[in-house]
Amino acid sequence: MADSIAERRTKAWEPYIHAKLGFRNHWYPVLLASEIAEQTPVPVKLLSEKILVNRIDGNLFAIKDRCLHRGVTLSDRIECHSKHTISCWYHGWTYRWDSGKLVDIMTNPSSVQIGRHAIRTYPVIEAKGLVFVYVGDGEPSDLAEDVPPGFLDADRAIFGKHRLVEANWRIGAENGFDAGHVFIHKDSILVKGNDIALPLGFAPGDPDQLTRAEVAAGSPKGVYDLLGEHSIPVFEGKIEGEVALMGNMGSKRVATSISIWLPGVLKVDPWPDPALTQFEWYVPVDETHHLYFQTLGKIVHSDEEERAFEREFHEKWVDLALNGFNDDDVMARTSMEPFYANDRGWTEEILFESDRAIIEWRRLASQHNRGIQQEANL
Amino acid sequence: MADSIAERRTKAWEPYIHAKLGFRNHWYPVLLASEIAEQTPVPVKLLSEKILVNRIDGNLFAIKDRCLHRGVTLSDRIECHSKHTISCWYHGWTYRWDSGKLVDIMTNPSSVQIGRHAIRTYPVIEAKGLVFVYVGDGEPSDLAEDVPPGFLDADRAIFGKHRLVEANWRIGAENGFDAGHVFIHKDSILVKGNDIALPLGFAPGDPDQLTRAEVAAGSPKGVYDLLGEHSIPVFEGKIEGEVALMGNMGSKRVATSISIWLPGVLKVDPWPDPALTQFEWYVPVDETHHLYFQTLGKIVHSDEEERAFEREFHEKWVDLALNGFNDDDVMARTSMEPFYANDRGWTEEILFESDRAIIEWRRLASQHNRGIQQEANL
Amino acid sequence: MADSIAERRTKAWEPYIHAKLGFRNHWYPVLLASEIAEQTPVPVKLLSEKILVNRIDGNLFAIKDRCLHRGVTLSDRIECHSKHTISCWYHGWTYRWDSGKLVDIMTNPSSVQIGRHAIRTYPVIEAKGLVFVYVGDGEPSDLAEDVPPGFLDADRAIFGKHRLVEANWRIGAENGFDAGHVFIHKDSILVKGNDIALPLGFAPGDPDQLTRAEVAAGSPKGVYDLLGEHSIPVFEGKIEGEVALMGNMGSKRVATSISIWLPGVLKVDPWPDPALTQFEWYVPVDETHHLYFQTLGKIVHSDEEERAFEREFHEKWVDLALNGFNDDDVMARTSMEPFYANDRGWTEEILFESDRAIIEWRRLASQHNRGIQQEANL
Repeated sequence: MADSIAERRTKAWEPYIHAKLGFRNHWYPVLLASEIAEQTPVPVKLLSEKILVNRIDGNLFAIKDRCLHRGVTLSDRIECHSKHTISCWYHGWTYRWDSGKLVDIMTNPSSVQIGRHAIRTYPVIEAKGLVFVYVGDGEPSDLAEDVPPGFLDADRAIFGKHRLVEANWRIGAENGFDAGHVFIHKDSILVKGNDIALPLGFAPGDPDQLTRAEVAAGSPKGVYDLLGEHSIPVFEGKIEGEVALMGNMGSKRVATSISIWLPGVLKVDPWPDPALTQFEWYVPVDETHHLYFQTLGKIVHSDEEERAFEREFHEKWVDLALNGFNDDDVMARTSMEPFYANDRGWTEEILFESDRAIIEWRRLASQHNRGIQQEANL
Repeated sequence: MADSIAERRTKAWEPYIHAKLGFRNHWYPVLLASEIAEQTPVPVKLLSEKILVNRIDGNLFAIKDRCLHRGVTLSDRIECHSKHTISCWYHGWTYRWDSGKLVDIMTNPSSVQIGRHAIRTYPVIEAKGLVFVYVGDGEPSDLAEDVPPGFLDADRAIFGKHRLVEANWRIGAENGFDAGHVFIHKDSILVKGNDIALPLGFAPGDPDQLTRAEVAAGSPKGVYDLLGEHSIPVFEGKIEGEVALMGNMGSKRVATSISIWLPGVLKVDPWPDPALTQFEWYVPVDETHHLYFQTLGKIVHSDEEERAFEREFHEKWVDLALNGFNDDDVMARTSMEPFYANDRGWTEEILFESDRAIIEWRRLASQHNRGIQQEANL
Repeated sequence: MADSIAERRTKAWEPYIHAKLGFRNHWYPVLLASEIAEQTPVPVKLLSEKILVNRIDGNLFAIKDRCLHRGVTLSDRIECHSKHTISCWYHGWTYRWDSGKLVDIMTNPSSVQIGRHAIRTYPVIEAKGLVFVYVGDGEPSDLAEDVPPGFLDADRAIFGKHRLVEANWRIGAENGFDAGHVFIHKDSILVKGNDIALPLGFAPGDPDQLTRAEVAAGSPKGVYDLLGEHSIPVFEGKIEGEVALMGNMGSKRVATSISIWLPGVLKVDPWPDPALTQFEWYVPVDETHHLYFQTLGKIVHSDEEERAFEREFHEKWVDLALNGFNDDDVMARTSMEPFYANDRGWTEEILFESDRAIIEWRRLASQHNRGIQQEANL
C-alpha cells in the first residue's frame, strides 16, 4: 500500500524525473552582466549545451560553442577578426554573432558551404544585472514569465553571485524550497548574530492549506510554501520526551513568504533581513551540476540608495548569507545527490508533512514546464 | 578440450564468481575496538553498504548510514542530541541506535511517520579487540563459525591493523591463500633477517593430497593447503637446466599450516615467527576494494606476557611483517585486479598444480557461503 | 538530401569508423632505438595491447606484457633470471623472449604446464633508429609497405621524438593530413622566423584533381593531397568583403608534397626546411590516445653530414618545429576529440572542399587496411 502510494505519486511527477538535464524553452541566468565585457566572449554551459556569449556595442549575443565543420570548441582559442563575427581558429569558418550565419571561410573564400549553414544562436538578454539565455525552439517566452513576481520591479535593485554545485539542479531546487530544512541552519552565524527568529522546524496543520500554486496564463508559474502560516513553529526539539535542542528565539521575523517558480528559481521574502528579498536559481549545467545563482533584491528610491545597498551587499551579505548561511545548503545538496543520481531516490525516499511543498513543486513543474531537454538535443 | 575443462571448472565455482560484492550473512571485522570510542560514531563500508558504528556505555551499535527521508549520509555531519539516538542533520529525523526506530522528528514532533519506520540496524560485536559487523537477514550466525579455529581461544592475545587495498576481496583471498606465491617474497627482509626457511616454490605430489576441506555443520568452513607436506620444496630455481636463483635456506620452519575460512579469512600457523599465528581478512568493501585486516595471535599466560607481546607487535612485527613482508602481497593484488575486473580472468587464467588449493577454496566458498550480496540489496 | 549524401559517404568509410583501436597486421613505431638498451625491457602499449620490448645481444624481442597464469603485468616487477628469458615475479613462470614458450616454472619445475603454453610474441624490428612492432596474425608484411616512400632510403638520416596525445589516432591522422588547417599555424614562430610562405588556406579548383591515391600491390598504400597544386593559395583573409587577416608572404616554399600512408603515417616534403622531410605517425595506443611519433629525415652523404644533421635536429628543429609548430596540431586534436568520441562526429560533421583529401584517406584506409583491431583481440 505504501508502495502503491509512492507509485501513484511518482506518476504525477514523471516529467520532472525525466528532466535531469533541465527544461527547454525557458530563460536561465548564466552570468552577471558585469562579467561580460565588450567584445570579450565568455563560454558557459546550460542544459548541457556549450554556449559562447559576447557583447557587441553593448548588445548581447550567444551562439553554440562548437564549429559546424569538425566540431571543435570555438572558445578553445577565440578569434574574432571582425567586430560582428567569430572565426573558428582551426579552418577560419566565420560566423556572424547575430544570425549565426556562416558568412565566410577564411581558408577558402569560394567554398560552396558559405551562406548555406548557420551555427545555432540563442536568445540572450540582460535584466537586473544578470545575463539570461534561452535554450529552446521557436520564439522565446517573455522573461517576466520565467522569474518570480517582483524580481523585475523597476525600483528593485539586484546584486548577486554564482557558483557551481556538484548536484543535479532538482536537488538544488528541492533543498532551497524546503522550509523544513531550517534545522540545518540552527548554528548559523547569520541567524544568531542577526537576531533572527528561527525555529527547528514546523508542525503542519491542515495539509490542504500548506501550499498555493500560481498557474495563471501569461504569468510566472510557481508554488508558495505556506508552512510558516499554517503550522506551529517548533522551538523545542524533543527526543523521547526530553528537550534536546532549542531553536533561535530572535526578534526578527523573516522568510515569511517562500515560493518557487519555473524553471527553478526561489523567492524568499524577506531574507536575510526584513528589508531584503533573496531570489536564487538552480541552473541546470549538466546531469550532476547546477549553477547556484544567488541574488538579493532591495527596493531603493535613488541611485544613492542603490549604491549604499551595493556596498552593503558586498561588505555584509555575501559573506554572511550567500556564502556562510547558504554553504550549509550546498553541503546538503552534495550529500543528497548520490541517493537520487541513479533515480532510485525518487521512489525510495520517505517524505513527511513539510515535504508537501516539494511534492506540489514537482507536480507543477511536471505540468507547466515548456519542454524537457534530451540527450538528442545536444 | 582445454576450454571445456575450463568451463566445467568455472561452473563449480559460479556462485563465487558472482560474489563480487562479498557474502551476506557472515561476520566481518571492520575496525579495531580501540578505534571506536564512547559515543563517537565511525562510518565504515562493508559489502558496499555504508554503515555507522557507535559505542554507548561500552556496547556497540551499527545502523545504515543513510537517512530514510531524503537519503543523505548521516555521518556527513554527526548529530547525536541524546545518548541513545542519532538525528539526521538535515531535518532532525531521529533514530535509536539499538532498534533503528524513528522515534522522533525534531522538525515536526507530530509527524505521522514517527514510529512507523526504522533505519536498518546491523548486528555488531567485539571480540579479540576487533569489531565485527554482520550484513544479513534474520538471526546472525555464531561468530565462532566465521573465524578460523583457534582465533577465539581464551589464552590467545590478538593485535592487528588494517588498510584499504585496490582489488576485489577474492583477489585478496587468493593471493593470501596461495602457497605457491612464496616466490614473490624471496627478497623479503623478514625472511632473510629472521633466518626463515623459504623455498622458491613447491613441486607437488599426489594432487588428491594437496588440500583438506573442513565443512562440519556448526563449525568454521575452510580449506587447508597441504602443499608444504605433500610436495618437494624447491630451493634451486632452474631455467633451461641452469640454476638461476636460490631460495632462502634458513633454520626456522614456519607457515607449516595454511588454511582459509569463510567468509574470507586466512590462518597461517606459525607465522611470522614460530610462536605466532597470522589471521587476516579480505573484507569486501566494494567491487574494487577490500579492507585488508591483518592480525597476529600469540598464546599468553599472563597480562604481563600479553603486554610484552603487544610491545613486540608494535615495535617489530608491524613494520617487518604486516607492512614490509605483506606489502609484496598488496602489490600482487593490485597487479592481478585488472585481469579479473571484467570477469574474463576467471575463464582465461591458466592454473597449475599449486593452485589446487585455490580451486578447492572457490568450490567450498561456492557451496558453503550463506548468501551473495547483490546490487539490489544496497 | 544532405543527409543521404552524408550516409552514402559514411558507408564508404565504415571500416575506418570501426577502427577505433587501430589496424592489425601493420607495423607501427613504438620507441626510439636509443630508448631500449641491452637487456632492459621497456613496456609499451599498441592497439590497446600491453607489450614488453627487450634487446638481447642487440636483437629486439617483444612479448605480451601479461603472465598466462594469473594475468599480472610482467613489467610491474621485471625479473630476468637468465639472458634469454623473463620470469613472472609472482610465481616464476618463465618465458623465452624469442618464442614466448613457457620453458620453466621456477616454483614448480615438474609442472605439466611447462612446454605446453607460449606467451604471445610480436614481430619487432629496428629501422632508421625506430623500433617497429607488428600486432597481427600470421607472417608480418614487409616494413617497406607500411612506411611512406623514401623513408627507408639508405642515404636518408632520420631523427625523431614521440609524445602521447589525448585523442584517437584517426583524429591525429586527419589533423596531420589536412592541408586546409594551415590557418592554425598563422602565428607560428617557425613560419615567421624561417621566412616560410604560408597562405591562410586554399581555394581548390577541380575536385577530381585534388588527390592522387597510390594502391599498387606490394607498395605502400597512400593518398597525396594535391591542394597546393590545384588551388589558389589564399593570402588575404576576407570577412564580409573586408581584408581581416594576412597569410605569411615568405620566400621559402615548403610542404609542396603532402601524403598519408597506411597504417597512419604522414609525409610532408619538404618540411620544415627545403632540405628536410617530416615523417610522422599517429600510433593507436587506446581508444582515446595516440602516440604522436615525429621524425625528420635528410639526405646525407657522409657520417659527418649525418652528425651535423643530428645536432641541428636537437638544437633547432625539436623546439621550433616538432614542439613549437606542432603543438598547435596537438591542441587541435584534443579539441576535436570529444565531437568524435561517441562516433556522432562522423555523421554530424560538415566537410568542405579542402577536406577532399581526408575523405580519400578514409576511403583508402577502409579498403586497404589489413584488419581492424577488436576488443576481442585484447
